[in-house]
Amino acid sequence: MRNLTEQSISDAVLARFSECPDPRLNQLFSALIRHLHEFAREVRLTPDEWMAGINFLTAAGHITDEKRQEFILLSDTLGLSALIDIIQNGDKPEQTTESSLLGPFFREGAPNLPFDADIAGPVEGERVVLHGRVTSIDGTPVAGAMLDVWQAAPNGLYDLQDKNQPEMNLRARLRTDAQGRYRFRSIKPASYPVPTDGPVGKMLNAVGRHPFRPAHVHFLIAALGHETLTTALYIDGDKYLDSDAVFGSRKSLVVGYSHFDKVANDREPQMDAIKFDFVLNPSPQRG
Amino acid sequence: MRNLTEQSISDAVLARFSECPDPRLNQLFSALIRHLHEFAREVRLTPDEWMAGINFLTAAGHITDEKRQEFILLSDTLGLSALIDIIQNGDKPEQTTESSLLGPFFREGAPNLPFDADIAGPVEGERVVLHGRVTSIDGTPVAGAMLDVWQAAPNGLYDLQDKNQPEMNLRARLRTDAQGRYRFRSIKPASYPVPTDGPVGKMLNAVGRHPFRPAHVHFLIAALGHETLTTALYIDGDKYLDSDAVFGSRKSLVVGYSHFDKVANDREPQMDAIKFDFVLNPSPQRG
Repeated sequence: MRNLTEQSISDAVLARFSECPDPRLNQLFSALIRHLHEFAREVRLTPDEWMAGINFLTAAGHITDEKRQEFILLSDTLGLSALIDIIQNGDKPEQTTESSLLGPFFREGAPNLPFDADIAGPVEGERVVLHGRVTSIDGTPVAGAMLDVWQAAPNGLYDLQDKNQPEMNLRARLRTDAQGRYRFRSIKPASYPVPTDGPVGKMLNAVGRHPFRPAHVHFLIAALGHETLTTALYIDGDKYLDSDAVFGSRKSLVVGYSHFDKVANDREPQMDAIKFDFVLNPSPQRG
Repeated sequence: MRNLTEQSISDAVLARFSECPDPRLNQLFSALIRHLHEFAREVRLTPDEWMAGINFLTAAGHITDEKRQEFILLSDTLGLSALIDIIQNGDKPEQTTESSLLGPFFREGAPNLPFDADIAGPVEGERVVLHGRVTSIDGTPVAGAMLDVWQAAPNGLYDLQDKNQPEMNLRARLRTDAQGRYRFRSIKPASYPVPTDGPVGKMLNAVGRHPFRPAHVHFLIAALGHETLTTALYIDGDKYLDSDAVFGSRKSLVVGYSHFDKVANDREPQMDAIKFDFVLNPSPQRG
């Protein structure tokens, strides 16, 4: 541990993990240390810059609480979350619906609502109905699939950020019917900035990046015999589609508004609709 | 931003920094993102492992306060702090005293104490006197150099961790005399564990590493016309010298106890001594 050079310090640190009882943990820390050290050597990181990094992480930790997760936001804005998603889901069959970020605003325990329920509560805005089917790769409808849906209000805020929305507003758990169909009513989503009052917002500003996400609605779809799908639908024409601050938007998940069948929608005949069919990947067969 | 692959996501993220007004910031973020993404690809980081990382950083942020800096401890235990120190100081002339970590326990505002002061306060332990000279590279004594010294008590705790020590105990600011000499009295330092009750302690335990630092006394030495030196003296024979949990110990900074001159030390004639001469690097000449 003595007479260390810029290069040999890395080997000295790696050697200290030789007693690690868990091979995967050893692999993770070894790779982390190699890349972290290589980063510092490559940019010749100065003590002041290092301290700025320490202060950044400290501020991120202090602003994080039950309702705010600045480290996930950091991971999102650096594209790490999107990369993890692609690593995890990139090898699925092409027919399956592409995944997208879970994001920091998912909440467990959304209310179970019936087919065709309205999830917008007191929030006002342009009305929309979202509907379609959940099928397996071979086109078989998936009955009884559980859809968690959640979205921000037109003011860009999720329920847990917004004092004017009741708890769990614009969130629901819905089930597909016997034909694999889902349908719910809501308001049209709008593009919105990620939280900018913390260190990540300051970072985006310092590097000249905007903080906006294109308008979207989140879906988490779980069904027996299938892999759970985390995804979102993005609204065609949104100006931030190609520069999503968290790198979540995908071409295959972009949807436009269409006119909804009047007969099926006699309560709100002028309502626009989003129609999207989700295709789930069957779970691997067990021996 | 759409139809992204495991590789192209990195380019997409890097492209978003093209408007960064600060070239150095752009360089830092570009390198950070490349290494971060390469790490995730290399180890095939899973969503659960990613979430464990998010939770680790969150816990580190929440335990960090004015008296506790878990992110610095993390940097220290991963060898990043030592690497930053080597990058910063590795090209100094060989005659100069080697630098070592500042560590998380330095505090501004230690009391100014006179030559030969006792910094141990009410703390009991084996007595020691530390003395020597501060010189420039050419051997010229540096008069009026300011030495910040700080150390842990024999229980392994610094003042700010220990309810039984007064504020700023075992800390002092001392000045060298006209001959460049410094001298102060204290208690012998002991090896001690870094804080293990937080996420970094859990990490060390999980990977099979001990949390101990070898016994040491910190020095921060500032003098006109010279670069400030952050270093520490490590006690010969300490069992953790070769496995310092934070990679701070250096062979050139290891010191043994010797018998101190009775005449100069008639107050405590049986006292052991540590003698060390610090050599400062002259500041670069201006214009």
